[in-house]
Amino acid sequence: MPRNTTRNTEGNTTKKTTRKTFYKKPRKSKPSGKIRIIPLGGIGEVGKNMTVIEYNEEIIIVDCGLGFPDEDMPGIDLVIPDITYLEENKDRIKGLFLTHGHEDHIGALPYFLRTLNPPIYGTPLTLGILRNKLEEHSLPWNPNLKTVAAGDRVKAGSFEVEFIHVNHSIADACALAIRTPLGTLIHTGDFKLDPSPIYGEMMDLVRLGEIGKEGVLLLMCESTNAERPGHTPSEKKVGASLEYIFSTHTKKRIIIATFSSNVHRVQQIIDASARHGRKVAIAGRSMVNIVRAATELGYMKVPEGTLVDINDIKRFKPTELTIVTTGSQGEPMSALYRMAFSDHAQVTLDANDLVVLSASAIPGNEKLVGRIINELSRREVEVLHDAVVEVHVSGHACQEELKLMQALTKPKYFMPVHGESRHLAANRDLARFMGMKEKDIFIPEIGKVLEIDSTGARWAGTVPSGKVLVDGYGVGDVGDIVLRDRLHLSQDGLIVVVATVDVDMGLLLSGPDVVSRGFVYVRESEDLIEEVRKVAADSIADVLRRRKVDRIQLKKRVRDDLTKYLYNKTKRKPMILPVIMDV
Amino acid sequence: MPRNTTRNTEGNTTKKTTRKTFYKKPRKSKPSGKIRIIPLGGIGEVGKNMTVIEYNEEIIIVDCGLGFPDEDMPGIDLVIPDITYLEENKDRIKGLFLTHGHEDHIGALPYFLRTLNPPIYGTPLTLGILRNKLEEHSLPWNPNLKTVAAGDRVKAGSFEVEFIHVNHSIADACALAIRTPLGTLIHTGDFKLDPSPIYGEMMDLVRLGEIGKEGVLLLMCESTNAERPGHTPSEKKVGASLEYIFSTHTKKRIIIATFSSNVHRVQQIIDASARHGRKVAIAGRSMVNIVRAATELGYMKVPEGTLVDINDIKRFKPTELTIVTTGSQGEPMSALYRMAFSDHAQVTLDANDLVVLSASAIPGNEKLVGRIINELSRREVEVLHDAVVEVHVSGHACQEELKLMQALTKPKYFMPVHGESRHLAANRDLARFMGMKEKDIFIPEIGKVLEIDSTGARWAGTVPSGKVLVDGYGVGDVGDIVLRDRLHLSQDGLIVVVATVDVDMGLLLSGPDVVSRGFVYVRESEDLIEEVRKVAADSIADVLRRRKVDRIQLKKRVRDDLTKYLYNKTKRKPMILPVIMDV
Repeated sequence: MPRNTTRNTEGNTTKKTTRKTFYKKPRKSKPSGKIRIIPLGGIGEVGKNMTVIEYNEEIIIVDCGLGFPDEDMPGIDLVIPDITYLEENKDRIKGLFLTHGHEDHIGALPYFLRTLNPPIYGTPLTLGILRNKLEEHSLPWNPNLKTVAAGDRVKAGSFEVEFIHVNHSIADACALAIRTPLGTLIHTGDFKLDPSPIYGEMMDLVRLGEIGKEGVLLLMCESTNAERPGHTPSEKKVGASLEYIFSTHTKKRIIIATFSSNVHRVQQIIDASARHGRKVAIAGRSMVNIVRAATELGYMKVPEGTLVDINDIKRFKPTELTIVTTGSQGEPMSALYRMAFSDHAQVTLDANDLVVLSASAIPGNEKLVGRIINELSRREVEVLHDAVVEVHVSGHACQEELKLMQALTKPKYFMPVHGESRHLAANRDLARFMGMKEKDIFIPEIGKVLEIDSTGARWAGTVPSGKVLVDGYGVGDVGDIVLRDRLHLSQDGLIVVVATVDVDMGLLLSGPDVVSRGFVYVRESEDLIEEVRKVAADSIADVLRRRKVDRIQLKKRVRDDLTKYLYNKTKRKPMILPVIMDV
Repeated sequence: MPRNTTRNTEGNTTKKTTRKTFYKKPRKSKPSGKIRIIPLGGIGEVGKNMTVIEYNEEIIIVDCGLGFPDEDMPGIDLVIPDITYLEENKDRIKGLFLTHGHEDHIGALPYFLRTLNPPIYGTPLTLGILRNKLEEHSLPWNPNLKTVAAGDRVKAGSFEVEFIHVNHSIADACALAIRTPLGTLIHTGDFKLDPSPIYGEMMDLVRLGEIGKEGVLLLMCESTNAERPGHTPSEKKVGASLEYIFSTHTKKRIIIATFSSNVHRVQQIIDASARHGRKVAIAGRSMVNIVRAATELGYMKVPEGTLVDINDIKRFKPTELTIVTTGSQGEPMSALYRMAFSDHAQVTLDANDLVVLSASAIPGNEKLVGRIINELSRREVEVLHDAVVEVHVSGHACQEELKLMQALTKPKYFMPVHGESRHLAANRDLARFMGMKEKDIFIPEIGKVLEIDSTGARWAGTVPSGKVLVDGYGVGDVGDIVLRDRLHLSQDGLIVVVATVDVDMGLLLSGPDVVSRGFVYVRESEDLIEEVRKVAADSIADVLRRRKVDRIQLKKRVRDDLTKYLYNKTKRKPMILPVIMDV
């Protein structure tokens, strides 16, 4: 156990010693410090969750996640928070605290760790997944990973951070109670309330309620499902659906796709398979990795002899097999996608197979998921998805659970976090419904500072913040101009006009040659390309006739004339790239 | 009324004269003809609905719709069916029959009419919308539009086509009963069963049932909602929701976005506004057009003095105004989008506004719709959408209605149409459930011919078919290679390497110059571009040292060397475009 961790019994509920309600009954001399809350991501967007919390000169960080590119970022692999502010205040950072092991909470760490190396606290599964991930990156130092358990308290400068067990679609998830001299902040991380989880206990309502009674200065509460009424169903519901599916499909091989990080879901699939006498094969690299890590760490229990290697499935009857696979989001390189399109080495699907999509499409992935369902339907494969049977439940709190969180923690100030603007607004509406005053609710923005001291809370300026785009090995070298060019190129393609001139003599020495890509298919449009060449030649000749010509003028004229000509002729605007060589 | 139309009373239910069940009780001498059913679009995809039906040498066509591009077709404006087969068999075409006026059923006509000009039959609203649309195109001839009404029968060669009233999310929609000497075919078009429609009657179940009793050889039934259990709710449900919304939002201006073609929806919004003493302003070009057309044709009734010009809204209190607008799919140029992003001349939205999205997102548009909801939430505008209140109902039949269609028409053969593969499969499953035999169900593919004669039905080869892409004025000049180039360019951009050489002498005369777009931002990556120049120079020099060099070799070498270099260095694969000028 790390030295600076004070471990309590989990869900410590008995000792009531020195608890004080910091803001309700202030000491005579109010603490003069200031808290600053600065989200660096995860606000008004999906993913990229990261929050900076300061007390005077000290900084701690909650989570360090990645996001995925929007459709207006072609070629981008992933998006991470801009951490310039942290790099500039490196020496003030006392620790980074991870709520759980999902990509949108830990995925930016390989990039963060290139320049920063504070102690990183997380539960065993969270750090297990992180270690796997870091192996693929070469880092300038060994990261300082410190394993904690729910119930542990970690001192970090003036902060004391307590990990509180919550339910979520990944095991070992925690909310954080962050004690400061000015009062206690609660960051919920991602959570749901599951009275019948697959592994471990229900979320620690009691501990949250105890802290609520002590007094909570600020609640930062996730907002993902804030638009959804009611409660999120228990993970056990999926188990019941699986039982029904396995009972009614004894004549088929069963292929189930889900998120690899949802170890409870995978556990339920394995359990159902074992009950029904099926072997289980795992497909997809991340699924294989996580099943191994979760089993080693004791988060999954696989009955002896149930798992078989995907290379050995020919040894079993199809009706005695379950295949658990990645690809529930329709990702084009995933195992399920390759199975559907006959591109998987071990598995080809047909009318004797049942495919279960045990996940819902993340917004933006609907068409990809639809493409797989269509291809499977075309091949007469039976497909079950969450619109047909309850084969998925969300990992996030719905409205009643969010209201419960408010009721337990009774915060003085409220900040909805983790969500698009619509979700933050819905979570704000819930807080209003729970009786919070408008002036005590703060809807955050990335980089915007919420300052709290003993006299109140208020917005107080901004810090440098934003998106950093990762493309291949490049981090941050693709900016707005490059993206704009990529989008332009993708719309109407490109025409390159090359000519060699002697500017001083006003002579065209060779060319213009015209090369096009992504505009029209040249063999079928030779006339048009020849026209383009003539227009360019005329423009060049016209400019060269004048005195005092420069290449920039020449390029501009060629670009302008061709753009106009082509728009009139084709109603398209390809990128025109004149390359004028001056000898 | 067109000369070759035999008008009956609508939903004629009394006369029972010469009806025969063609296939159940064949005459002694079986008719020797052949029917061929050939979908040219709308199968395994969204939109682009078009079906060719032949009896011996005669052809009729049902619908002629457009589709929208997938994400792997950048720059494409729209997609239309390949009609090569029809152009090759021009003289055999007896008529084109339109089921209703949605884009995915009539939108390809401006392109179809460039080469073909058969009589086109449709109901008044369908042809009214079509006329509007054709005005924007210059055509080689006046299209031969023939107005019919539900109940009418049109003779076209050996065919007799009867228009049968159905409910749908546009007024004046029809199914078609197509009589041939071999038996009757039913094409449902798009339909739902609405016992309480806003305008006109419930779908003509009785007529369908009568034809069913006569005997139906083939049912071609739409499949859009075949995965959804139950019944699609009545359009009146939306009216009830609107009444509730108007009653509870008296302090706000109300902005409602919906599909412009859903004239019943717009009628309900106008009615609710009038009841609550609100004026109605219309925003968005297509909304203005359709409201005008529908009012002129009598499909909409606007209470005197209710409509006000969008330019005059300042004259009314916000609480006395409703604005009906386009943009329910989040389209970036739509009126609602511009209102949300403060780019609309007359309307800016804030916390005093309620925006109602009276539509559901078409698959693929979820992110666009989400973007608008987020921006409105950020501006504290209240937003109601179909996940929160029932402000939209589908226009397509759910499972119970599809089963009803089967039960009424009792077809010998069944072909699910209009839907992605998943929907066709679900509709097939419904037919099985209704007792149809596997061998009598035919899941179609575009261009694949179903042949029916007195001895049975079978697949019988294919005809030329496919997608034609429309980009600006260009129809069909963008093919796979161009699209592949656009996608490649959008992923990692482009590097152009230009050099002038004397191949015969083995001399590099000028360059290589390197120009990049969409790769990295050059000012910040000057070193990398300089490296690229050096690699290219080395490659060129190396090739030129050999005897017998040609430009193709030279280009290939530069491309290969740079691709390898850049992938190792950056893990990216920009398009490399070497332009070698030989003097």
